Amino acid sequence: MAHAMAAPSKRVVSAPRYSDGATYFDMGEHTLRVPMSLHAENRARLVARLKEMIGEGKLNAGSAVLLQGGSDVQRDATDCTWVFRQESFFHWVFGVLEPDWFGVIKVDSGKTTLFCPKLPQDFAVVMGRIIPPEDFKTRYQVESVCYVDDMPEVLGKMKPTTLLTLKGVNSDSGLTTREAHFDGIDKFSVNNSILHTEMSELRVTKSAAEIEVMRYAAMVSSEAHCAVMKHIRPGMYEYQLESVFQHHSYYQGGCRHQAYTNICGGGVSGAVLHYGHAGAPNDCIIRDGDMCLFDMGAEYYCYASDVTCSFPANGKFSADQKMIYNAVLAANRAVFDSAKPGVKWDDMHELSYRVMLKKLKEGGLLTGDVEEMIKADIGGVFQPHGLGHLIGMDAHDPGGYLPSCPPRPTKDGFNKLRMARVLKHNMVLTIEPGCYFIDVLLDRALADPKKSKFIVKEELERFRGFGGVRIEDDVVIREEGNDLLNKVPRTVEEIETLMAEGRQEIVSFPHAEGKHSSQR
Amino acid sequence: MAHAMAAPSKRVVSAPRYSDGATYFDMGEHTLRVPMSLHAENRARLVARLKEMIGEGKLNAGSAVLLQGGSDVQRDATDCTWVFRQESFFHWVFGVLEPDWFGVIKVDSGKTTLFCPKLPQDFAVVMGRIIPPEDFKTRYQVESVCYVDDMPEVLGKMKPTTLLTLKGVNSDSGLTTREAHFDGIDKFSVNNSILHTEMSELRVTKSAAEIEVMRYAAMVSSEAHCAVMKHIRPGMYEYQLESVFQHHSYYQGGCRHQAYTNICGGGVSGAVLHYGHAGAPNDCIIRDGDMCLFDMGAEYYCYASDVTCSFPANGKFSADQKMIYNAVLAANRAVFDSAKPGVKWDDMHELSYRVMLKKLKEGGLLTGDVEEMIKADIGGVFQPHGLGHLIGMDAHDPGGYLPSCPPRPTKDGFNKLRMARVLKHNMVLTIEPGCYFIDVLLDRALADPKKSKFIVKEELERFRGFGGVRIEDDVVIREEGNDLLNKVPRTVEEIETLMAEGRQEIVSFPHAEGKHSSQR
Repeated sequence: MAHAMAAPSKRVVSAPRYSDGATYFDMGEHTLRVPMSLHAENRARLVARLKEMIGEGKLNAGSAVLLQGGSDVQRDATDCTWVFRQESFFHWVFGVLEPDWFGVIKVDSGKTTLFCPKLPQDFAVVMGRIIPPEDFKTRYQVESVCYVDDMPEVLGKMKPTTLLTLKGVNSDSGLTTREAHFDGIDKFSVNNSILHTEMSELRVTKSAAEIEVMRYAAMVSSEAHCAVMKHIRPGMYEYQLESVFQHHSYYQGGCRHQAYTNICGGGVSGAVLHYGHAGAPNDCIIRDGDMCLFDMGAEYYCYASDVTCSFPANGKFSADQKMIYNAVLAANRAVFDSAKPGVKWDDMHELSYRVMLKKLKEGGLLTGDVEEMIKADIGGVFQPHGLGHLIGMDAHDPGGYLPSCPPRPTKDGFNKLRMARVLKHNMVLTIEPGCYFIDVLLDRALADPKKSKFIVKEELERFRGFGGVRIEDDVVIREEGNDLLNKVPRTVEEIETLMAEGRQEIVSFPHAEGKHSSQR
Repeated sequence: MAHAMAAPSKRVVSAPRYSDGATYFDMGEHTLRVPMSLHAENRARLVARLKEMIGEGKLNAGSAVLLQGGSDVQRDATDCTWVFRQESFFHWVFGVLEPDWFGVIKVDSGKTTLFCPKLPQDFAVVMGRIIPPEDFKTRYQVESVCYVDDMPEVLGKMKPTTLLTLKGVNSDSGLTTREAHFDGIDKFSVNNSILHTEMSELRVTKSAAEIEVMRYAAMVSSEAHCAVMKHIRPGMYEYQLESVFQHHSYYQGGCRHQAYTNICGGGVSGAVLHYGHAGAPNDCIIRDGDMCLFDMGAEYYCYASDVTCSFPANGKFSADQKMIYNAVLAANRAVFDSAKPGVKWDDMHELSYRVMLKKLKEGGLLTGDVEEMIKADIGGVFQPHGLGHLIGMDAHDPGGYLPSCPPRPTKDGFNKLRMARVLKHNMVLTIEPGCYFIDVLLDRALADPKKSKFIVKEELERFRGFGGVRIEDDVVIREEGNDLLNKVPRTVEEIETLMAEGRQEIVSFPHAEGKHSSQR
């Protein structure tokens, strides 16, 4: 018998998942190790705040927080499932990465009970070893883990005076969170009105542990952007660079998810703010002379990064490209230098318009008084979006317009802002000024005498089809000076140097080698 | 002014999307060009079948088919959207790749009207040029394109005697399709009981045009699997090979989506049938001596491929690995040679068990009479899944258990089959026998005297932790001989040769260079 002659197998059987006492998450030794204490700290912050509310008489003693985690999402009616990604509020408190869990925190004691689904033994054949609650307890570092099936009984014994559930509207999507529900919840006193605001507010400022995860995600994105800049050649399709980015962030950085749909616009595509969606899926060819606007961000352990790099496809800025780029860069840097605790975000938005418009005037594209331009919303003609947004577990993190916050500005050019808050220490947000040449906005401005008088029409025409420039950084607002999480080449010189390095390498791309001809 | 000295921009502005008269889909000249006539042919097949039913008195003359396309899916309550993927039934008839459309086909004339969402002008800033219905009409090659808003009026004028909507249960997921709905549909006579069965049955056999798209997807997957086999080195993490596969299929093949969650199991992970899900996300290290089981398939233009390759991580089969591998390969080849129109799929399943068990007996792992083994369900101990499934727009394509089909077998070892149909010309299905060493199944078999007598226990113990082998092909059943869509090395010699080639290349993987230490 052939196999009897083989040497005995020397393979080491991997440790069964979650039975090795690991109390951290990582994707291998080359990736960031995240301790479960990150979530213990988040829970402690939540409990402290709720205790304050008890002290203020706004909440009953004996209350408990009840959260429901995310579930798998099927693609239509098929049995194909989107790769699971935990719901952010749930992940923020518990760190559980699997579907169909619940979690309870007693406010008085801070004690946490997680509830995992009870899986049938045959599940092991399809999905792997069934992990017992004890192993989960160690992994997630909580006081107790029970089965979801036993939740009514366990909660019944716990006798919370009030169950606090999460219900609130996301101010970016307009969607309402899924409130925790189980059969038998009607036997409890439920309050769904306070948790969303309090948790959202807590999520607005990040702990040191959270900032380290975000720094890691931003660094992975930074390196992936650099890989793209080195790899790009005119003649490639936009999506090929999306693929390079995703591969780099997954292969090198262990990031299975992207934080949002990548925007990879070459040339005129760069003027489409949410390019990359199904109707415009990064499928155009990149041409020599194109300006590229690549807005891509990897996600690690459900923490987002959101970084935009703009650069010339061929590696050398033209004079026009340099002028526009430097106008945006000046705005980005001015905001980075000025944004600090106590400063209002809408003032930063105005500052970025002021700096950019001044530079566009120096570049000959605009004429007249810059303050008058701002009043006439020339800013919104060239940058029809807000300066930036909160970022954390979600690329657009919640908390921009909570009840206690200044409401959305109504002024033209300011009403797209995702928040108008006063900045706080350890807020993390994006700074992302941009300058775009969007025909519909340019035509409207030229047709409006209040706006057209600031525009040098002969100069502007040359920029039709230019696309756009956006320079987006992920920044921690700090008392002692802001902390820039990403690290990509930003000056014209830095970009040209990196791209010249990339040109030393041979890259393969398969165009015109295929058997299919094209009139494209 | 600096920029005034620049040479005039020579950049060519890309043609606005869908205004160039294109009547095809592709992702560049190196990818497959898919003509919209593919969908015209599908519609013609549907209309012909429905006319037959009118002739048989099973349907009213003057009926019209009404389908609703997919919508964007948000991640929980955030404004992060999963990359849109059209609903398969809708795509099969219309080829529309964007969300929130409807489509109507008049059965008598075959005339098609598509309904696209009416987007506000400001949409152009965020999402790109607003495409007028006329351009869509050319692109999708239909008689007319209107706005969804106008659907009640357009349908009112059309006066269908019956609106046929899609409602049915997917036999793999148990989920019900989303039935078309719009405000005002209650004014029409609606029949939701026939369309799902008829369309599912039509989808079971593929047209020549569809087979070409599937061949392309399978070839992209084949090349990506080869890239993985050349790239793999012990010490890598499983997900890094998932990343290589995805990058290859997107960058080279234009496949933005995978057809399902990739299964990348090294060693013992290979025995987890749906490895790769959130609870076991391809995150183990691959060790020297591991057998790898990589089940990955790219999707192109909503057509799936589904290919599994099994190979030793270090590029050389051990004698044990070779024995198991060849047992599975023999089963795969026997089925490929025997599966033809008129043959029952459950008979093929039994054939694959017979061939594999015979080989395992020759290899010394089993003892006794092979026919007795089959009766005792020894097949199901080592391969606890069906031989294969229909494949098309979905990896698990519908139509396995339609009302007219043989029902799901109840016999142990056969009850996991995703269909028990008689094969037909131009059915496309996977042939995917496997052999796994799953502790829970082995222990149960050893504890059952009816089963344990066939197992050579001393030999079996050596295979604990081996993982598994699966060899999965995508095959068109043809009268004139089956058509194998994928092309990967399959014999031990072919695999070792390709992997040896890969070993000539230097690959970089970042382990232990990072700053984070590990006790993993």
